[in-house]
Amino acid sequence: MAADDTSNVFEAHPMEGGDGPNSYAKNSIVQRGVVDAAKELVKRAIVETLNIDILSSSNSFKIADLGCSVGPNTFYAVENMIEAVEFKYQSQGQNSQIPEFQVLFNDHASNDFNMLFISFPENKRYYAAGVPGSFYSRVFPNASIHLVHSSYAIHWLSRVPKEVLDKHSPAWNKGKIHYLNARDEVVRAYEAQYVEDMECFLHARAQEIVYGGLMVLIFPGRPNGSASSQAWANMSFQVLGSCLMDLVRKGVISEEKVDSSNMPIYSMTPQELEDAVKQNGCFSVEIMANLPHPLVDDTLSVPQLLASHLRTGVEGMVKKQFGEEILDELFDLYREKCEHDALNFLAVLGHNFIVVLRRKAD
Amino acid sequence: MAADDTSNVFEAHPMEGGDGPNSYAKNSIVQRGVVDAAKELVKRAIVETLNIDILSSSNSFKIADLGCSVGPNTFYAVENMIEAVEFKYQSQGQNSQIPEFQVLFNDHASNDFNMLFISFPENKRYYAAGVPGSFYSRVFPNASIHLVHSSYAIHWLSRVPKEVLDKHSPAWNKGKIHYLNARDEVVRAYEAQYVEDMECFLHARAQEIVYGGLMVLIFPGRPNGSASSQAWANMSFQVLGSCLMDLVRKGVISEEKVDSSNMPIYSMTPQELEDAVKQNGCFSVEIMANLPHPLVDDTLSVPQLLASHLRTGVEGMVKKQFGEEILDELFDLYREKCEHDALNFLAVLGHNFIVVLRRKAD
Repeated sequence: MAADDTSNVFEAHPMEGGDGPNSYAKNSIVQRGVVDAAKELVKRAIVETLNIDILSSSNSFKIADLGCSVGPNTFYAVENMIEAVEFKYQSQGQNSQIPEFQVLFNDHASNDFNMLFISFPENKRYYAAGVPGSFYSRVFPNASIHLVHSSYAIHWLSRVPKEVLDKHSPAWNKGKIHYLNARDEVVRAYEAQYVEDMECFLHARAQEIVYGGLMVLIFPGRPNGSASSQAWANMSFQVLGSCLMDLVRKGVISEEKVDSSNMPIYSMTPQELEDAVKQNGCFSVEIMANLPHPLVDDTLSVPQLLASHLRTGVEGMVKKQFGEEILDELFDLYREKCEHDALNFLAVLGHNFIVVLRRKAD
Repeated sequence: MAADDTSNVFEAHPMEGGDGPNSYAKNSIVQRGVVDAAKELVKRAIVETLNIDILSSSNSFKIADLGCSVGPNTFYAVENMIEAVEFKYQSQGQNSQIPEFQVLFNDHASNDFNMLFISFPENKRYYAAGVPGSFYSRVFPNASIHLVHSSYAIHWLSRVPKEVLDKHSPAWNKGKIHYLNARDEVVRAYEAQYVEDMECFLHARAQEIVYGGLMVLIFPGRPNGSASSQAWANMSFQVLGSCLMDLVRKGVISEEKVDSSNMPIYSMTPQELEDAVKQNGCFSVEIMANLPHPLVDDTLSVPQLLASHLRTGVEGMVKKQFGEEILDELFDLYREKCEHDALNFLAVLGHNFIVVLRRKAD
């Protein structure tokens, strides 16, 4: 996810740090809902599929959370996984063999690790480390991790596809910031970037995860065979793009700035991920499932929730590109547009998936 | 080093973060001098004493730097150690067996890890992780580290001895902020805190370091058998204390605030460390040596250097206790007093030691 192209400010994208009103820590409600919805599934998946023999004696059990952000969701997820691993030992009568745990919290170097580190739960039952760096490249030593977890992170691409920013390319994405309802060339450029990134992701993890180790991936996407519009992120960024174009028409921002802003996000289907896993060849798919819908169906609060959620995710990027002064107007406009479409938004918010992969022995 | 006593603000003491004029990153010249002076000694120590058989095949070589602060000194030290380990492999004809390296950068949770993480050298040859927490307790899993390094950190105590802050104790350290020229009871309270802390330090490391693993400790102190004044830190804090009392007499600050401020620093002798190692029983002393003097003998610049150096180390603490407005006056005063005593200061700046310990098999 590290930026290697400075022509588009939407490249490096840590969540809003600190604990202010628009911070990730205060507004990661949708992600928290997904964590909650995933909780039992993750626990069951670990209990059902983990082989505790992958741990050599006297070794510690190493868990990595990729794209951890600043908490608290990462702490809930980690605690849940540790409980599951412990339960697995207990259920096999190996209570006395329960290992020490080390948890490696990974995110971009620009993530607010200071905040993460001072937020650790008291009496945590694991040794903690922060690991800065893009998970599209290697971040851990060879065969050093037993369980990888990543929630709401792998839908971020490593970069915006170059072509969509290139005026002279047929994939130039003029007047939009994402690929929904864009030209075919734009969609194909995003697809190609996804394929390339997922190849890098799986290649890196195949080296880092011990044979038999597990990888739990939770991500928003769209169902197999559905239209591009059936993904929350796609709908969101189409609407956000149209709000930005409204501000262009009002003369508040320039159209060039919109043209040079594209969101490095791809809403994959489970099938696309499965294809990438097959292509990589190092993992077996153990579980692939829809998550239960993360929200109660309170449609009234959906627009505000969506606006807060989106603002948390992209405020830093929008501010950098368009200036702080447009933020309130932009996200108010966004909320209004969401109100017209609240039911559709509510539906696609349920398109979250869990995939559990196992590292095969070579 | 984590504070567990809030009655004294000099408890938690990260170096000044960021990269401003008084930051550690810009003013760690003395420490850098020590790193430079130690460089060849550390390299030779690793080449001479490391047994590469401690690394099982397919494992990565794990180096921990305790009290790493924000760089760049930690990066120089790490690079130097990796070169030494690689040289050891090469010198034994095992070039092809050179392992991957993982470096664990440890400091207080309040250390500026964000700055550390964005400062990593380009093309570093190791996987990096930040590990927040006091090194007076466990910070790594059991038997997980091959080489521990700590430079200019273990002279910080985990806390100020309680008695020296207690008005009703014979060890109350009225009108001073450190133990040089203080009552015997004060000195004994500091000594006892050092003994307790070093016991915790060695106990934690004995569990974390693999059998045969090494620990390289570099610290400012005083020579065996010398007076307490023969340590740079002791001289510094006596002088700083007298400057604070000058400000008390001028009515700038209150004497109560000086009474409730004590520096959690102890200037050990190599013998005291050796005694602690014997008491602990898990390590053998492989090397114990004076470091070459870190500075060229330019006495003119010493007072300014000392003032900048000290300010970098304690500015955060002084600001919190006495207010930002006294900083310039205080450190100007300190510089002036150093000018009268520059030669003595220059001499004790040379009292830095290197100790290499090996984890014995039980």
